[in-house]
Amino acid sequence: MTSPLLSRSNPLQRIRIVLSRTSHPGNIGAAARAMKTMGLGRLYLVAPKSFPDPQADAMASGANDVLENAVVCATLEEALADTVFATALTARRRGLAAEPLWARQAAAELVAETQRGGDGAEVALVLGNESAGLTNGELALCQRWASISANPEFSSLNVAAALQILCYELRLAALDVGPPPPINDAGELARFDEVDGLLGHLERAAIGSGFLDPAAPKRLMPRMRRLFGRARLEKEEVCILRGMLSSWESKNSS
Amino acid sequence: MTSPLLSRSNPLQRIRIVLSRTSHPGNIGAAARAMKTMGLGRLYLVAPKSFPDPQADAMASGANDVLENAVVCATLEEALADTVFATALTARRRGLAAEPLWARQAAAELVAETQRGGDGAEVALVLGNESAGLTNGELALCQRWASISANPEFSSLNVAAALQILCYELRLAALDVGPPPPINDAGELARFDEVDGLLGHLERAAIGSGFLDPAAPKRLMPRMRRLFGRARLEKEEVCILRGMLSSWESKNSS
Repeated sequence: MTSPLLSRSNPLQRIRIVLSRTSHPGNIGAAARAMKTMGLGRLYLVAPKSFPDPQADAMASGANDVLENAVVCATLEEALADTVFATALTARRRGLAAEPLWARQAAAELVAETQRGGDGAEVALVLGNESAGLTNGELALCQRWASISANPEFSSLNVAAALQILCYELRLAALDVGPPPPINDAGELARFDEVDGLLGHLERAAIGSGFLDPAAPKRLMPRMRRLFGRARLEKEEVCILRGMLSSWESKNSS
Repeated sequence: MTSPLLSRSNPLQRIRIVLSRTSHPGNIGAAARAMKTMGLGRLYLVAPKSFPDPQADAMASGANDVLENAVVCATLEEALADTVFATALTARRRGLAAEPLWARQAAAELVAETQRGGDGAEVALVLGNESAGLTNGELALCQRWASISANPEFSSLNVAAALQILCYELRLAALDVGPPPPINDAGELARFDEVDGLLGHLERAAIGSGFLDPAAPKRLMPRMRRLFGRARLEKEEVCILRGMLSSWESKNSS
């Protein structure tokens, strides 16, 4: 059985994450972790300062398989060989070959390009050195510029943090994630007639205690119906509330 | 002049990020950085193991103002005082008070609740301890459960990485980020008649060189028009290409 992480029909497995000239090996490990949490696994390293490195292993904390499978290249050209499309993630605004896109749209485009490119076509997301970014020469090899909307007064996302956002966007663009996972111990929702029975019980109890004057009921019962409707009562909660009402009724009548 | 980061009309400034019982001070610093990059600034710390701490300062790398303004509380109840809505970010699936939402929808809901809650109303996003998460008692204080779609085989997002994604989603939900920033040195786009002139020039040159037989032109010119249309030529590029064509024409005629 092929693991979903290795399946080639999964668009996430046709996206290379290329880190160019990374200075801090810890960032390579953190990048591997960010990738794996989102289901990506194909890491390319262009002339990393130090790799393999114990700091990378430590920061990967469980994503060590991504590091083990990483492809080390001498140049960006080598890392992009066989790809049909490459997007640069950069805050630069000069010398770019293509129109910029926000991260969300750029992620959707990368996923779409894996489909357009035909069988086995791969695409790449390219991130530059931590301080110097991508060179003009590297930028010229990419067809697209992606940018993360950030606080203009403090836009310094760490390379792993930026990659975490992009991999998250790629995951959402590539997979139909469906509804959120259900709560395991969530109770069964009460049916209309059960909630209606509770409201009838509440009304009788409120009349019995003198709180509600049936000759001038005002808006008490519509308001209670609205409240319980919003709360989306569970069966068990209806039972508890009716039991509580009964306890007050018998106290009143005693 | 009030900084945009401190403006109360900005929904991001009405969202408290609450970290409960954080063990590693470095994570508090990384969280502050993640918040500030996305324009959030209100950090609440419930019983942090160590704070202030040099490790927090180091990891904040420039978001130290967020740490300086952080509010340290003894309990989650204290951190949630004055809030009208609280969302727990957790991978737990038991004992939750509310329906789960994915991060994107949960972020939109939090922003909407800052508007619904009236003047000065605040909301909270609550994250638990790195290893133990949130307790049942803490979860019971939150009206909503938010979850980040992750690789089911490796879903271990670090607290700062998870917060980076949520703050990014909150930013996109709260602000109209508009189009991506323009490229500074992008050229002016060529007008239709300029591209048309280029195509006419190309056709003449191709006939002149014998590459194109005007009696059997096939699909050459429609293909060239398609190519240049896709490339969205700039004025300067049209000039360069026409200059190049002229150079070949004069060579042929010489």
